[in-house]
Amino acid sequence: MEKKEKIIIGLCIIATIAAGILHYVEANPILAFFVSAAALALLAMIVGDATEQLGSRLGPGMTGILQSSLGNLPELFVSIFALRAGLANVVQAALIGSILGNLLLVFGFALFLGGLKNGTQRFKSEPPKMIATLMILAVAALMIPTLAHELHTPAEAHINNLDIFCAIVLLVLLAANIYFSIKGDAAVVPQEKEAGEAEWSMGLAIGVLAGAGIGAALVSDWFVAALEPMMKTFGLSEAFTGLVIVAIAGNSIENLVGIQFAWRNQADYAVSIMLNSSLQIALGLIPVLVILSLFLGGSVLTLVLPPLLVASLALAAIVSAFIVYDGESIWLEGLALIGLYFIIAASFWWG
Amino acid sequence: MEKKEKIIIGLCIIATIAAGILHYVEANPILAFFVSAAALALLAMIVGDATEQLGSRLGPGMTGILQSSLGNLPELFVSIFALRAGLANVVQAALIGSILGNLLLVFGFALFLGGLKNGTQRFKSEPPKMIATLMILAVAALMIPTLAHELHTPAEAHINNLDIFCAIVLLVLLAANIYFSIKGDAAVVPQEKEAGEAEWSMGLAIGVLAGAGIGAALVSDWFVAALEPMMKTFGLSEAFTGLVIVAIAGNSIENLVGIQFAWRNQADYAVSIMLNSSLQIALGLIPVLVILSLFLGGSVLTLVLPPLLVASLALAAIVSAFIVYDGESIWLEGLALIGLYFIIAASFWWG
Amino acid sequence: MEKKEKIIIGLCIIATIAAGILHYVEANPILAFFVSAAALALLAMIVGDATEQLGSRLGPGMTGILQSSLGNLPELFVSIFALRAGLANVVQAALIGSILGNLLLVFGFALFLGGLKNGTQRFKSEPPKMIATLMILAVAALMIPTLAHELHTPAEAHINNLDIFCAIVLLVLLAANIYFSIKGDAAVVPQEKEAGEAEWSMGLAIGVLAGAGIGAALVSDWFVAALEPMMKTFGLSEAFTGLVIVAIAGNSIENLVGIQFAWRNQADYAVSIMLNSSLQIALGLIPVLVILSLFLGGSVLTLVLPPLLVASLALAAIVSAFIVYDGESIWLEGLALIGLYFIIAASFWWG
Repeated sequence: MEKKEKIIIGLCIIATIAAGILHYVEANPILAFFVSAAALALLAMIVGDATEQLGSRLGPGMTGILQSSLGNLPELFVSIFALRAGLANVVQAALIGSILGNLLLVFGFALFLGGLKNGTQRFKSEPPKMIATLMILAVAALMIPTLAHELHTPAEAHINNLDIFCAIVLLVLLAANIYFSIKGDAAVVPQEKEAGEAEWSMGLAIGVLAGAGIGAALVSDWFVAALEPMMKTFGLSEAFTGLVIVAIAGNSIENLVGIQFAWRNQADYAVSIMLNSSLQIALGLIPVLVILSLFLGGSVLTLVLPPLLVASLALAAIVSAFIVYDGESIWLEGLALIGLYFIIAASFWWG
Repeated sequence: MEKKEKIIIGLCIIATIAAGILHYVEANPILAFFVSAAALALLAMIVGDATEQLGSRLGPGMTGILQSSLGNLPELFVSIFALRAGLANVVQAALIGSILGNLLLVFGFALFLGGLKNGTQRFKSEPPKMIATLMILAVAALMIPTLAHELHTPAEAHINNLDIFCAIVLLVLLAANIYFSIKGDAAVVPQEKEAGEAEWSMGLAIGVLAGAGIGAALVSDWFVAALEPMMKTFGLSEAFTGLVIVAIAGNSIENLVGIQFAWRNQADYAVSIMLNSSLQIALGLIPVLVILSLFLGGSVLTLVLPPLLVASLALAAIVSAFIVYDGESIWLEGLALIGLYFIIAASFWWG
Repeated sequence: MEKKEKIIIGLCIIATIAAGILHYVEANPILAFFVSAAALALLAMIVGDATEQLGSRLGPGMTGILQSSLGNLPELFVSIFALRAGLANVVQAALIGSILGNLLLVFGFALFLGGLKNGTQRFKSEPPKMIATLMILAVAALMIPTLAHELHTPAEAHINNLDIFCAIVLLVLLAANIYFSIKGDAAVVPQEKEAGEAEWSMGLAIGVLAGAGIGAALVSDWFVAALEPMMKTFGLSEAFTGLVIVAIAGNSIENLVGIQFAWRNQADYAVSIMLNSSLQIALGLIPVLVILSLFLGGSVLTLVLPPLLVASLALAAIVSAFIVYDGESIWLEGLALIGLYFIIAASFWWG
């Protein structure tokens, strides 16, 4: 284990313990919120590292499977606790917010900073286009239940069935996507940086993963508990909290990696990471939560989203696809993506 | 005439006679429906073959004209009889369903099966992009009357005039498209397989075409007559019946050709066929029916479609355009297209 | 100064004087309208020429700044007078109409005529794609306030704040765009024809610009005054008047230049000009007017547009982006763009 990794794990343990104390002491909900958010972000990062280490021990194929199933573990826990707390609106906004955050904000910063440093960046390989196309398809599928509901079609009365059908189709595509990333044509599967050499022993990787998973489950509970007091204190709307605050807490540090690669002029790989992260949420996390929520006893998560959220999702998917298809990017496009993110976030500001 | 063609014509004659008997005997409407649907599909196939044979006798230019004017003959007859039977909703759904079926289901199967067999398939030539662009433009034009109506603009009160104006513009584009396919730059006109060598005599081609045309007119009547009992028996909604059942009956066998070419790794030609078939419906069949319906005395066909149908059409056009522009395709994209088709079809399931 | 330029200035002075006389005599409002429209179109052309001449004296970087700030001067004046006359609907329609006119009508004619003359035209360089991508992003940003309002989100009650926020973001992107066109990677900045050699002295350029600016301010007033009588006489709706009549009067001659380049088979440059002109309106003219209108004392210009206008804008941006991304164009695509423009215009015909 590298020194940097040890420091992160150390920080994470401290943050987790602090978050736990603040939660049970019930002293200052605002401080509790920020500490648990920080712990969550660090745990997300460690889960990512441990998954990769474990994957590189188990062979290249398994990395894809592990990343798909475990990569969004912290967001999964947060969503489950939030659904049980009756915060379905926050969860919906946070899931779409994670996608928007990736496609607009993180992608925007990657192009902006990468472009400022390296000039015009060119996407040469095929994976970015492929993932952008799949993202467009996933978003189109995700839009149907909301459209069916908002346009008052007869399906409106059977929307739960349509949700479940839609979730199953998305999960089939997720399975196919994992299979493809293992067996597919090497030219169109995103390559991993330097095949992520296994530096941790198998036992260490499993241990860290298990520890981080348990930590994520605990911290998610505390984070959700601190969410409502925080919203009240700052007067934030449920939609804005989910779309921006929760989404960034769950994704932020994880996504610094993508920006790092753009900075090093590895635009292709940076784009693949960021788009793929969104795709995992659309094909995996969202349908899993739709189906899980039926058995959890809290709010049911429906795919009938606030229409402005769906419209923003559609805009983000189309806009990012055009940038990828463009074949090259400049910092100005990155800035425009960031600007679009801010305008969308602003439109959810009022509660 | 090849042996295969003789068998198809023989089967078709048997199916047509059986459909006629079942229609007049009024014994079993469900059986009558399936037999007339089968006869219709076979007739559509024979009309296609005969059109091609006649075209290759009359020169390459004429093939385009004939295919544009006669290729959708069976669907034209079915639509006319259905409009006269007051089934305007079914006709609207069937027309859009034919386009969706081509752009999502047939295109999806072509990419899925072609990709499984041949690995990543690349589109090199220009026609697929060109047709996808024209399809996007035609869909944009088709969306305006529905938008004008649903958004309650002043044009809502004059929607018949807007429909007719829109239909005329689309027919002008159809004429230009036919002219272009005759005179245009060879590099951007889809090439025919092996120029379809004329194997039938002119007389035989005209005879078969006339016979199949008369057959299609008769069978369409019987098919429409069996439609309502079938819908009642199976509890199908008008929208689902049109979108899926009628659309597939009118297009299915015809479109197997496209899938066949993808299977043989001729992705460019396969895509051109499938997109072009959709384009003929959007630029030809739909505006012709809008104008014809004014004089038929049955329901008037309007371009004001159910908004979910229009939204699905827009999604299908954008999604398929991105896949074509991508330049290469994998079976996973095909599977995602099929998945999107199923989700859209499911959203119209309830009546 | 060339002879052609002298003739245009002469004609313009005559038209301006005639427009002034007709305005103050109050004889024939229809004649007054057409004369002031002609004067306005000529003034727009002269402002364009003088800006370019001044720019080439001040160095290449300044040209971009001047064109961005002064290129839409006549439209700015017309919009200001129309807002003060309470014609906010006309202004909204005219601003979107200018973009639609560029993206569909002018672009369509350029591809149609250029394609008929030169066959298939290919876009090789990068600027057209880049501008099309930025246009898509700007349109996405412009759509948010209307969506927030029409979908009745909580932001509906704070729409003025959202408008202002959105306008500021667009102006930041405008500033970045100007900076990029000065300092950016030469490969992705549209090249000017032949660097526009300075033929006028600095004094002459400033003098002509000042004269044309004053003329534009005067004529705009008279043009707006004649607008309402003209609308009543011909029974035109406010939306149609803005979308078609005002938009074309403000842009028409200016845009003949783009068509000219397409005719000479310089498709890349033609596309850059036309898309860039739309981008300047979206990033510059619209947000400037939103903010200016707060201080003018007339109608306030809001970004909450009639939804059909926003839908048309989105269709135009997507359609034109696909044509640019296509990499080549045929006259048929041009014709389809023109057809789409006519259908959209027709949908606003009724008042």
